[in-house]
Amino acid sequence: MKIPVVERIMQANDILAEEVRGTLRANGVVALNIMGTPGSGKTSLVEQTISRLGRELSIAVIEGDIATSLDAERLSKLGVQVVQVNTGRECHLDAGMVKMAIAQMDLPGVDLLLVENVGNLVCPAEFDIGESRKILVASVPEGHDKVQKYPLMFRLADAVALNKMDLLPHVDFDLASFRSALSDLNPQAPLFEVSCSTGANLDEWVEWVRSQVAR
Amino acid sequence: MKIPVVERIMQANDILAEEVRGTLRANGVVALNIMGTPGSGKTSLVEQTISRLGRELSIAVIEGDIATSLDAERLSKLGVQVVQVNTGRECHLDAGMVKMAIAQMDLPGVDLLLVENVGNLVCPAEFDIGESRKILVASVPEGHDKVQKYPLMFRLADAVALNKMDLLPHVDFDLASFRSALSDLNPQAPLFEVSCSTGANLDEWVEWVRSQVAR
Repeated sequence: MKIPVVERIMQANDILAEEVRGTLRANGVVALNIMGTPGSGKTSLVEQTISRLGRELSIAVIEGDIATSLDAERLSKLGVQVVQVNTGRECHLDAGMVKMAIAQMDLPGVDLLLVENVGNLVCPAEFDIGESRKILVASVPEGHDKVQKYPLMFRLADAVALNKMDLLPHVDFDLASFRSALSDLNPQAPLFEVSCSTGANLDEWVEWVRSQVAR
Repeated sequence: MKIPVVERIMQANDILAEEVRGTLRANGVVALNIMGTPGSGKTSLVEQTISRLGRELSIAVIEGDIATSLDAERLSKLGVQVVQVNTGRECHLDAGMVKMAIAQMDLPGVDLLLVENVGNLVCPAEFDIGESRKILVASVPEGHDKVQKYPLMFRLADAVALNKMDLLPHVDFDLASFRSALSDLNPQAPLFEVSCSTGANLDEWVEWVRSQVAR
């Protein structure tokens, strides 16, 4: 679909993204766009981040899903502001959706906005949603070849969380190969090798998030 | 992107899909469009299918990937015809790509064409590629809530393979909930609970594939 109309849509998205970015900046909000394949553990990482940083920071969440409010319900139990965006058939969040979502939030006073994108390792990479940083959540059972096979999102990521490290003994995953593919493609992005189910290495991740908010 | 131009693209795709379907039918080829999220095990299922049916059926493969020919290289070792389609930025195969791919194949004599789509639980569902059957490969570590969260592809599937059943003891996956969500949404689709790494229940899957070719 490389046609002029699509280019105009992308331009319109970029304009809205700058608007969202301006609104967030004016309110002192740092926004993380959390992307990854379905089941990589995006919601679990959001939960863990809230439970570790929720006392020192005011956190809000936008949950992007094709359908259901399952994730928003999971997160609202943690006592944070959550807005669910159901995209219908759309395979990604765009800046217009985020603009509508933040309009429903009590933004002043929020330090950190966690935006969980639709589960998809391809399309969300192309849509600026006005975020401060792009986070990619990958997971061990997906296999070590995903950096090479889905390069765009890994290239654009400001940080990568490799989740489900606890499953390493049970699957065929070459960690050295994953690490070297990532550092070849995107040497700047820190890699956090975590397990949201056991809690392993989440302190490092949380420290990085804290450093982004403190900037 | 719900605009007239996109509708015209979809119509153009449907016309090409019918053309592909006609070519395949004329050559007596049954084509399975194998979809699922990155790392669900689509390539492994293709490998297992070839190794179990490759002696009785003539099998050919189209490998759809954003980038790399890693999967095609894996499969060409099994002695089948493989055509790699690199989609660049596109998040799905379309009928035009499949038309180009089969033009490069020696189609007469092929019984079964396995088309591995781009890893994506959203977009490929919307593109008819001229296949005989749509197959959805899900996997246990993705979580049991994926049927509800990505309903379109689960609804359209003619069969569902739930892979990585060997990881069930190591993850939080409610099998009864997955089964009942699938049978609510798509009661016709048979569910094959398999492990491509241990080989569990692959005989049932292979039997179903055989029955599709025999029709």
